[in-house]
Amino acid sequence: MIDYEQFYSANAKGMKESELKELLKFTNKPGIISFAGGYPAPDLFPVAEITEIINDLMAKGGTGIFQYGAAEGYLPLREELVKFMKKQGVDIALEQLVIITSSQQGLDLVGKVFLSPGDVIMTGKPTYIGAIMAFNCYSAQMCGIELDDDGIDTALLEKEIKNLIAAKRKPKCIYVVPDFQNPSGITISLDRRKELIRIAEEYDLLIVEDSPYRQLRFEGEPEPPLVSLNSERVLSLYTFSKILLPGFRLGWMIGPEPLIRKSVIAKMAGDICAPPFNQAVVAEFLKRELLEGQIEKIIAAYREKRDLMLAKLAEYMPEREGLKWTHPNGGLFLWLTLPENMDATEMFRDAVEKKVAYVVGQAFDPEGKKRNTMRLNFSFASLEQIDEGVKRLAQVIKSR
Amino acid sequence: MIDYEQFYSANAKGMKESELKELLKFTNKPGIISFAGGYPAPDLFPVAEITEIINDLMAKGGTGIFQYGAAEGYLPLREELVKFMKKQGVDIALEQLVIITSSQQGLDLVGKVFLSPGDVIMTGKPTYIGAIMAFNCYSAQMCGIELDDDGIDTALLEKEIKNLIAAKRKPKCIYVVPDFQNPSGITISLDRRKELIRIAEEYDLLIVEDSPYRQLRFEGEPEPPLVSLNSERVLSLYTFSKILLPGFRLGWMIGPEPLIRKSVIAKMAGDICAPPFNQAVVAEFLKRELLEGQIEKIIAAYREKRDLMLAKLAEYMPEREGLKWTHPNGGLFLWLTLPENMDATEMFRDAVEKKVAYVVGQAFDPEGKKRNTMRLNFSFASLEQIDEGVKRLAQVIKSR
Repeated sequence: MIDYEQFYSANAKGMKESELKELLKFTNKPGIISFAGGYPAPDLFPVAEITEIINDLMAKGGTGIFQYGAAEGYLPLREELVKFMKKQGVDIALEQLVIITSSQQGLDLVGKVFLSPGDVIMTGKPTYIGAIMAFNCYSAQMCGIELDDDGIDTALLEKEIKNLIAAKRKPKCIYVVPDFQNPSGITISLDRRKELIRIAEEYDLLIVEDSPYRQLRFEGEPEPPLVSLNSERVLSLYTFSKILLPGFRLGWMIGPEPLIRKSVIAKMAGDICAPPFNQAVVAEFLKRELLEGQIEKIIAAYREKRDLMLAKLAEYMPEREGLKWTHPNGGLFLWLTLPENMDATEMFRDAVEKKVAYVVGQAFDPEGKKRNTMRLNFSFASLEQIDEGVKRLAQVIKSR
Repeated sequence: MIDYEQFYSANAKGMKESELKELLKFTNKPGIISFAGGYPAPDLFPVAEITEIINDLMAKGGTGIFQYGAAEGYLPLREELVKFMKKQGVDIALEQLVIITSSQQGLDLVGKVFLSPGDVIMTGKPTYIGAIMAFNCYSAQMCGIELDDDGIDTALLEKEIKNLIAAKRKPKCIYVVPDFQNPSGITISLDRRKELIRIAEEYDLLIVEDSPYRQLRFEGEPEPPLVSLNSERVLSLYTFSKILLPGFRLGWMIGPEPLIRKSVIAKMAGDICAPPFNQAVVAEFLKRELLEGQIEKIIAAYREKRDLMLAKLAEYMPEREGLKWTHPNGGLFLWLTLPENMDATEMFRDAVEKKVAYVVGQAFDPEGKKRNTMRLNFSFASLEQIDEGVKRLAQVIKSR
C-alpha cells in the first residue's frame, strides 16, 4: 500500500472534507425540504432569453467564443460590467476588472496572491464557509470578529488588530461580506463601513469585499460598496450566480490595478481564462439590458419568500430563552440562534429524519466551535415548502 | 502611494507576467501569421452539433444545468468519460475521475495538493509552459531533464533523482507530457514509459501524466498511457480543449482514489464546481457518439497541416549546422532548434516585423535559459498561411 500522505503539501494536510459538502448531499434525498444550500430559485432562471441569445450567437457564425480567451476576461463582458458597476456608484477603469470563474475563484486568488502560511486574515464570526475553505487551503490563520445587527463589530476588530500587531502578527486583510452576509443576512451599516475603511487606512491593511447578494435588496436604501469609499485598499468580488445563474460559473473581481494585474497572472496559471462561451452569452444578456429586469424578478420572489419564512418562524417556533433569528433586508439567508444549551450539529440528524435540512452554524465559525446556530436559506424552497419546512424545524426544536 | 508588495504572499512574489501572454498578443495583430499559441483550428469546431444539443437541452426544460453542481463533476459526463477511458485501455472506477475546469486547473491542483515551497518536481526540458506557471505559483523547484527522440532521458532522470535524494531533496513527482509533448512534439517510447514507472516505484514517487493531445495521433500505434501501467502512482490530466473546443474550459483528471478525493476538496475550495451547463452539453456530445468522429476530423486536418509544415521547412529553411526540427506523429506542435549561436528570443522582434510569430523556446525551459529553440504550432494557421509563414520564418533565419 502506498503512503499517499507523504506526498501532500503542507497546505493540503489541512484540507478536510467540507461539512457543507456532506450536508448538501441530504438536500437531494426525496422528501427533504432544504434550507441548506445557497441555491437560487431555479424557476427564475431566464431560460428562454438565454436560449435566444445562444442561438443568435451561433447564427452569427463567429468561432471566437469557442476558442481560448484572454486571462483578464472577454472584453465585451468586462466593458458591460464597468458600466454596470458605474450605475452602482463604483467608477473603475477597465484594467481594474477581471472576469473570474466564480467568485469562489476570487477567494482562491485572494489566498494565492496574499496569504502565506500563518498569515492572519480578519473575518466575521460567523463568516462565509467558502472563504474559510479557500483560506484554509493556504494555511492562513483566520481571526473571527463577532457581528451584531450593524455587521462586524469594528471596535472589537480594531482591538484585535492592535493585539495582533503587538504580537508581531499583523494581519494582511479584512474579509467581509458587507451586504446580507452569508450566513447571517446582516448588512454592515454606513458608520461601520466608514470605520472599516479608517481601520484599513490606519493599520495599512487591505479589505476583501465579497458581495454576491448586494443587488438583491428587498427594501431600504443600499449602503455604499466599500470599494467606493476607498478604491486603493479594497478588492471586491461579485458573481452572476445569484443575479443570473450559477451554472455558468462566472463572477468578477475589481480593485487597484496592481492587485488585479497580479491576480490575472495567478488566474492564468490556474485555469488560463474563464469560459469564453459563457462570458459571451452573459455579455449579450447585459447588452440587451435584461439583467436589471432579471434582478427585479428575483427580488420580488425572494422578498415574498423571506416574508413567509419570517412569518412562519414567528408562528411555529416555540418561546425559548435565546431562540431568535435575523431579519435580513435582502439576500438568500437568515441566521437562527438556538438557546445556548442546544446543539444544531447534533440536532441535524433529527432534522433530516423529520425531512428538513439546514446548514449547521459551526461550519461558518472560523474556529469551528459555536454550535447553537444554523443558516436558513429561503431562496431555493417553494412557498409551500417554506411553510412546511419551518413547521418541521419548529417541531424538531420543540422536541428537544 | 500604497506599497502593495508588502501584501503579496511568498508565492505571489515569484509570479511574473508570462512571456507567453505577452507573445500571444502579437498573434492578434493584422497580417501576422501565428505559429505561436496552442489554438486549435476554429473551422473544425462542431458548431452545428453543439447548437442542436443546446437547443435540445433547453427544450427539455430541466434547470439543473443552470444550477450549482457537484464538485467532482456532472455525473453523466463522468460516466461517459469512464467509458471513453476504457476504450483507451484505462479501466477506472467512477471515484477515480473528477471533472476539472480545464487541464490547467489540474496542474494548479497538483501544485496545491502536492507542492510545498521548495518541493522538487522533475520535468522535461523543455516542458509545458503552463505547468511551469502553475508550479511556480507554489514556489516549487523544477528540475528539468533533457529529452531525445524517445522522450525524457530516463537514465539522466534516475541519476538526478539519486543526486537529489543524496542531497536530502527527494522529489515528489515526475511531470511529463508523454504524447506529442508540448512544446517538442516528442512521444515517450514504450521502453521509456516502463522505465518511468520503474523509477517511480523504486524511488517512491508520483507521476503526473498530462496528455491533452493523446487522441490526436496521425500515424503509428499509440503507446500505453502511463496510468495503465501503474494505476497507483499516476495522476492523468486530459482536456476537451484540443479534441472538442477550448471555449468551455473542461477537462478531467484521473488517478488513485485518495488523491482524487483530496483534489476534489481542493477543487471545491477553488471554484465550487466546473460549469454544469458546459458539462451537460459535452456529456450529450459524448452520449451521441459524436466525439470519435470529431477526433477523426481533427486528425485528418492536422495531419495535412503537419505534413505541409514539414515539407515547407525542408523546402525553405537554409542549410545551417545545428538547424533542425522534430517530426511529431501527432498533436499540435513541432520544435525547431536553431544553430547554437542563434537566439530565438532576440530574433522574435525580426520575426514579428516579417509578420510571423512563434513561441520562444526559453519559455519552456524550467530554468529559463536555453535560447536557440522555438515552438511552432501547426493546428491554427491555414494551409496557405503555413506555406507563407514558414517562408517568412526561413527568411528571418537566413537574414541573420
